[in-house]
Amino acid sequence: MANLMEDEVFMAFTTYAAIVILKMMLMAPLTAYYRITRGSYANEEDVSRKSAEEKKKLLKAHPDVERARRCHQNDLENVIPFMLIGLLYALTGPELSAALLHFRLFAGCRIFHTISYITVLPQPSRGLSWILGMLVTFSMAYRVLSTVLLL
Amino acid sequence: MANLMEDEVFMAFTTYAAIVILKMMLMAPLTAYYRITRGSYANEEDVSRKSAEEKKKLLKAHPDVERARRCHQNDLENVIPFMLIGLLYALTGPELSAALLHFRLFAGCRIFHTISYITVLPQPSRGLSWILGMLVTFSMAYRVLSTVLLL
Amino acid sequence: MANLMEDEVFMAFTTYAAIVILKMMLMAPLTAYYRITRGSYANEEDVSRKSAEEKKKLLKAHPDVERARRCHQNDLENVIPFMLIGLLYALTGPELSAALLHFRLFAGCRIFHTISYITVLPQPSRGLSWILGMLVTFSMAYRVLSTVLLL
Repeated sequence: MANLMEDEVFMAFTTYAAIVILKMMLMAPLTAYYRITRGSYANEEDVSRKSAEEKKKLLKAHPDVERARRCHQNDLENVIPFMLIGLLYALTGPELSAALLHFRLFAGCRIFHTISYITVLPQPSRGLSWILGMLVTFSMAYRVLSTVLLL
Repeated sequence: MANLMEDEVFMAFTTYAAIVILKMMLMAPLTAYYRITRGSYANEEDVSRKSAEEKKKLLKAHPDVERARRCHQNDLENVIPFMLIGLLYALTGPELSAALLHFRLFAGCRIFHTISYITVLPQPSRGLSWILGMLVTFSMAYRVLSTVLLL
Repeated sequence: MANLMEDEVFMAFTTYAAIVILKMMLMAPLTAYYRITRGSYANEEDVSRKSAEEKKKLLKAHPDVERARRCHQNDLENVIPFMLIGLLYALTGPELSAALLHFRLFAGCRIFHTISYITVLPQPSRGLSWILGMLVTFSMAYRVLSTVLLL
């Protein structure tokens, strides 16, 4: 088994995969932070100690919380396909330099995507980083399907 | 490492996994297409050049956009478990014919599920393709747990 | 290929991964159950045989359905990163006892999280099980990045 972790491409994949997944997971504490500072909760038991009037107020959606949630959702829709396709891609034995280019580009895109989403940078910064990240995954999927095809 | 990609079951898994993930990823451009043609956006910076009145209109939800998003969400909830269970299933060394049956059935179900969701086919077409896809994943999970069990 | 499934750590990972994924997948039938018993649907074709007045009623959101959906979403946001990081973690060759501790703790946390979410247990039961589950994943990610780092 150890031989997988001795392969340089697989080591590079592991590194960048862990980085983008950690980035994605950090959206949850960020959402929690916005929920607390903006006073916007989704569950009644989270505001159980408050008066009925306060509860009503605290259970309303807040734009900052919704923005963080949309960003998290976009990560789920893009980072997880990258991970799964990337795992298969790493197993097809690509050149280390080509693999690193894919992984670095994707990680950079997603970090920039989150920054532009949360800090509300003007478009097309968010749109372009989203599309470029997807193209990286499509490029890896193309390599996977052109190397291994058994229908 | 190369020996994984020389295994026929793993090659079949790789092929169908890439297909269903690509299908899932295509929901994002479809949602973007509906957002543009139906004029329904989620973020203020996406409509920054419009007048205040137009903005209000463009930031409302549209049924077609919401439908594409629900379909995408259903893919996340079903395709990703299939991928992860399928990866473990492929490693348990099943018969190629049995594995192909699982993978083909699942891919067929999900493609039909998307068609019936987006083109609003009458029920139970969407419901049945959803349930059949889940049963395929359950069947693979059963094989995984009955072959490998270390609690 | 068979050598992966002869490794005890990988077998333990496979077992717990299948368990938490099955738990996550069961949120879908639970949501469907709430949709039917509470009379709350998201798609018009699901209520096509009803009168116009009834349709309007049946297409409204119900708190129980929304709660099950939030719980499912939280699973997606936590179980899938655990799976992906856990797969890489298992490949770094940790001690069996350390790996089992991580996997058992995570599975326990997520099962308790679902129970406390669906049965509306008072906080901080849901919050703590959510945070503890995340810490397990962070601990595995730390091990992965400190063993394998190729930027």
